[in-house]
Amino acid sequence: MSGIVVRNIERAPQDVIDGLAHCGVATVHEAQGRTGLLAPHMRPIYAGARIAGSAVTISAPPGDNWMIHVAIEQLAPGDILVLAPTSPCTDGYFGDLLATSAMARGCRGLIIDAGVRDVRDLTQMGFPVWSKAVHAQGTVKATLGSVNVPIICANALIAPGDVVIADDDGVCVVPRADAAAVLEKAQAREANEESKRVRMANGELGLDIYDMRGKLAAMGLKYV
Amino acid sequence: MSGIVVRNIERAPQDVIDGLAHCGVATVHEAQGRTGLLAPHMRPIYAGARIAGSAVTISAPPGDNWMIHVAIEQLAPGDILVLAPTSPCTDGYFGDLLATSAMARGCRGLIIDAGVRDVRDLTQMGFPVWSKAVHAQGTVKATLGSVNVPIICANALIAPGDVVIADDDGVCVVPRADAAAVLEKAQAREANEESKRVRMANGELGLDIYDMRGKLAAMGLKYV
Amino acid sequence: MSGIVVRNIERAPQDVIDGLAHCGVATVHEAQGRTGLLAPHMRPIYAGARIAGSAVTISAPPGDNWMIHVAIEQLAPGDILVLAPTSPCTDGYFGDLLATSAMARGCRGLIIDAGVRDVRDLTQMGFPVWSKAVHAQGTVKATLGSVNVPIICANALIAPGDVVIADDDGVCVVPRADAAAVLEKAQAREANEESKRVRMANGELGLDIYDMRGKLAAMGLKYV
Amino acid sequence: MSGIVVRNIERAPQDVIDGLAHCGVATVHEAQGRTGLLAPHMRPIYAGARIAGSAVTISAPPGDNWMIHVAIEQLAPGDILVLAPTSPCTDGYFGDLLATSAMARGCRGLIIDAGVRDVRDLTQMGFPVWSKAVHAQGTVKATLGSVNVPIICANALIAPGDVVIADDDGVCVVPRADAAAVLEKAQAREANEESKRVRMANGELGLDIYDMRGKLAAMGLKYV
Amino acid sequence: MSGIVVRNIERAPQDVIDGLAHCGVATVHEAQGRTGLLAPHMRPIYAGARIAGSAVTISAPPGDNWMIHVAIEQLAPGDILVLAPTSPCTDGYFGDLLATSAMARGCRGLIIDAGVRDVRDLTQMGFPVWSKAVHAQGTVKATLGSVNVPIICANALIAPGDVVIADDDGVCVVPRADAAAVLEKAQAREANEESKRVRMANGELGLDIYDMRGKLAAMGLKYV
Amino acid sequence: MSGIVVRNIERAPQDVIDGLAHCGVATVHEAQGRTGLLAPHMRPIYAGARIAGSAVTISAPPGDNWMIHVAIEQLAPGDILVLAPTSPCTDGYFGDLLATSAMARGCRGLIIDAGVRDVRDLTQMGFPVWSKAVHAQGTVKATLGSVNVPIICANALIAPGDVVIADDDGVCVVPRADAAAVLEKAQAREANEESKRVRMANGELGLDIYDMRGKLAAMGLKYV
Repeated sequence: MSGIVVRNIERAPQDVIDGLAHCGVATVHEAQGRTGLLAPHMRPIYAGARIAGSAVTISAPPGDNWMIHVAIEQLAPGDILVLAPTSPCTDGYFGDLLATSAMARGCRGLIIDAGVRDVRDLTQMGFPVWSKAVHAQGTVKATLGSVNVPIICANALIAPGDVVIADDDGVCVVPRADAAAVLEKAQAREANEESKRVRMANGELGLDIYDMRGKLAAMGLKYV
Repeated sequence: MSGIVVRNIERAPQDVIDGLAHCGVATVHEAQGRTGLLAPHMRPIYAGARIAGSAVTISAPPGDNWMIHVAIEQLAPGDILVLAPTSPCTDGYFGDLLATSAMARGCRGLIIDAGVRDVRDLTQMGFPVWSKAVHAQGTVKATLGSVNVPIICANALIAPGDVVIADDDGVCVVPRADAAAVLEKAQAREANEESKRVRMANGELGLDIYDMRGKLAAMGLKYV
Repeated sequence: MSGIVVRNIERAPQDVIDGLAHCGVATVHEAQGRTGLLAPHMRPIYAGARIAGSAVTISAPPGDNWMIHVAIEQLAPGDILVLAPTSPCTDGYFGDLLATSAMARGCRGLIIDAGVRDVRDLTQMGFPVWSKAVHAQGTVKATLGSVNVPIICANALIAPGDVVIADDDGVCVVPRADAAAVLEKAQAREANEESKRVRMANGELGLDIYDMRGKLAAMGLKYV
Repeated sequence: MSGIVVRNIERAPQDVIDGLAHCGVATVHEAQGRTGLLAPHMRPIYAGARIAGSAVTISAPPGDNWMIHVAIEQLAPGDILVLAPTSPCTDGYFGDLLATSAMARGCRGLIIDAGVRDVRDLTQMGFPVWSKAVHAQGTVKATLGSVNVPIICANALIAPGDVVIADDDGVCVVPRADAAAVLEKAQAREANEESKRVRMANGELGLDIYDMRGKLAAMGLKYV
Repeated sequence: MSGIVVRNIERAPQDVIDGLAHCGVATVHEAQGRTGLLAPHMRPIYAGARIAGSAVTISAPPGDNWMIHVAIEQLAPGDILVLAPTSPCTDGYFGDLLATSAMARGCRGLIIDAGVRDVRDLTQMGFPVWSKAVHAQGTVKATLGSVNVPIICANALIAPGDVVIADDDGVCVVPRADAAAVLEKAQAREANEESKRVRMANGELGLDIYDMRGKLAAMGLKYV
Repeated sequence: MSGIVVRNIERAPQDVIDGLAHCGVATVHEAQGRTGLLAPHMRPIYAGARIAGSAVTISAPPGDNWMIHVAIEQLAPGDILVLAPTSPCTDGYFGDLLATSAMARGCRGLIIDAGVRDVRDLTQMGFPVWSKAVHAQGTVKATLGSVNVPIICANALIAPGDVVIADDDGVCVVPRADAAAVLEKAQAREANEESKRVRMANGELGLDIYDMRGKLAAMGLKYV
């Protein structure tokens, strides 16, 4: 199954991708029916980044980063590298040199269910990474993997060209074909939340805004 | 045992609470005989916050945040929400909308032995949270829990109205009835530490300040 | 085996130590053949610090920080305290008072395979710590350990006087006798990387810079 | 707060305790409203044991088993030792010698939110233990704790004399005063389950036995 | 996306499924190119079981086992229940009553990326379970999920009707359409291994059987 | 540092090794001053084995088991294979074929700070393994490591020829040169424990046998 590089992948429209980035992970996750979230062990190396992009996927052996070099050639501007090791691994597959190369091709960030290193440099370069670990441990270049095949990354299925959104809350994937529809729902959700935010800021309670009191009483909630 | 909301809880005096906040978690923990500390997996979503407040407690089912809406109505200015799920859970029970509502009622922060989301917004709003996880995963509103009953949160017993102190070192609870006495000891401890800090900054050793050399020798310590 | 304090340890030359600090953990680790890295659970209490120093080692019982007082007397300017508990422990062995004392003797930081507390103060003081946990839990002073004996800390062997390098990527140890040779290799590696960084920033690919295409094809990589 | 031994504790009636043992952890937990369960990291050292007894509680410093000796003197036949360390610890506090002593006093087992050792011997002796870890690491006898005070053990509150039930599913605590009432509910639950077991064994579905089809349809479940 | 039950799923031929069971997880995993393995936290509740069957999949909310009742109706003899919660959860979704019902319909076992209870009874009944946790914690029946939709379970993609193989080494999934081809390769692999086992039992070395010495020398291996 | 195989290693006398096996891990660990224990995540694949042997050490890359083939040639009857990966890894490096080969050379077991597979077969063969994980995940043979060099395995330093003892309590290493002296102390300890076991079985308390009452009172223990 390994040793394959898919050159041409389809991508969602750039404005849809950017719209999803603006909505953020929590909203997009809600908008697509609470699906697509990666496991919560995926954490950003620095706070404050919020990105979206088309996934260029990498299936890599544990402790072997050869396929990242192969994947970088497949990057288009606005893409995000997404790497899943074929078995659990915390090695530092990626550092400032690879980030320099990826940024030169317009890459917006890296999602890796393994380790990353040179995080001080990556922070200074403004290249965001969501990873399972920070680990200076180096890797080898000895065994093939694949690029742009579907992968399972941190308990989520990601196909090449899917839209990946990442911020301080974690990482979410939206299937490419659903991206426009999910964006529409996410934006509706945002508008709806904004009106509630104003009411709540003014002291109205969720109990009243969402009309919960009757249902709570019917379920048996007792105030004492 | 669930489905109960206790409306009226007693609280410690505000100046005692604020005094405990000023002392911080490590000092308060020492001052009450090294008890009351929550488990170290409770981490702040951003660095630098230091708060204390009266606990409004929530016992909630896993993945169900309905009771937070109920609890917010019970908040008085200066309170802290403290949530323990009835079984281990990392879901994001709480985000920026609920924080807006809680802040409108004077809430100082959230302690949750589960997950939180919208952490970028919460950071910008200055609403501090100590949690077990950051996770965008949403929750449902389907099952009752209780508000203002005693809970076990991150291996500590917390009763409604107990004083909760939280900072970068973690979270500590002080029983309401002990708060004034603990504050007195904490302040004495601080004064005592200050004099030692000056001596140590001047190069004096703990070995001499605490008069440890004789006891160490008696125990058999050998310098070679 | 415990109850011993070795007073006189040899140290590497200060310029070698400072050179290693400048190279950073990932580069030094590569330069000495990918050895010497501590386990990735060792994380800094704040981002951005990069230090190196001679190890003053501490073997301490779980939950007992008595030996830190003993060790501080053995510090020379530029040293780093390195503590390994004799069994797994997350207690907060070290706080702002001990840091004040250590800084007064020129100590550059602490590496501890256990917990630390007062991290807000330590951050303000600019005293960096790499630890397994942040925990306000206090310790006792009841049982002897040893100072300046070889220890296993976070799965790495560290002898007194070895050079310890720490930054946002983690912690690495270089045996004292190898320090000058490792520095030379690390600096050569840095120079080499700089030329590659320029080429990559200009859009050249690692596939070409490292001449990987032929080998990948020989291994059977297929582009589709 | 430490350094106290409570000599006389009240216990539930022996037949109630034995009845609860017969029902087992899962049933008792349900019967008291899904409360009282210890965290799932508490695992038996061998399969098949099912016990209940009155808790003789121990609050012990990390890595210090002195208080177990004190507690053994407080054991009455049918009791269970329950130990919570004052901070997280995996050391082996207990082995075959202490088990011999505890068994001589009629102790039925040990619940310990820390480590245990000599597990081969304990298995051969038929002395069951539920623990967080198996670890040969020894402990010291240097610092006081307390015996027969309320403790938080693996996220559950346990008072001396409470009934502790343990089997392959984990550990559950029933407050002493509730024991008889909980037993009654547990036995009713068992009887009710038995009739359902027969129907299910005959091929009837839970969907029909519990009359769920209508509610599922009303919630919107679709068969396709 | 939830609230759907797919009634009719295709299954692999029974003799293929049984053949895969006989080969076991490690061999099947190798035979399909080292893919399909579930994460190693999936452990059997008792040693020695080795099963295969067609997956009846369940996507369930955290702490809600309602859909298991729905899924049991969809079981055909020889099937295996496979449950993935929609967010991380250790609750005990399944016990002896549900096992009785599932066995009455010919179910061979349960794979659940969450918790299980009544494990003593399940062991006595000979109903094998591979789970993330053993936990007596009960669940509710309040929210819909889906049955027989594709799920991600313990980092593996499983479609309804896929063949699931489980033994003491863990759990592996084989896509239904590939089952016959994978079986063929697995059996070839077994035959090949058997001849090597005989040679190795007679003292021949892998170094010679696999002709590794030349390649090792070429790579630079040095005997000293 | 890698790519080296040391052919000739010194071993402790066989009767000393066998004596240490008889004493078991907990006793040996105590006898050498509570040092040498591997981390408690090292667990046996089946209960009841108790072995000792001379370490043939392996330093292997993550996910690469090539060096095990090299190491097997270096085995003498009575040896134990001890493998440490160069970075954290749970892959199944070792299965029934390698065990067949190792047993043909008289190997007594495997200690591996990574994963193992075919555990059902290994159990039937009576080949004991202590590992960090059970995982069917296969490995490659692409990169060199070393055999019979000092390694850090599960936080313990192990040199080739050191005596490794393993049982249900975990794993302990005794430096070769110390083996005879440690055995002597371990046997003395055993004899001493036996007399205490008899007294305790007869109901005498540790409080009296070890004469603790006075010291406890002096420390301030209060009976109430």
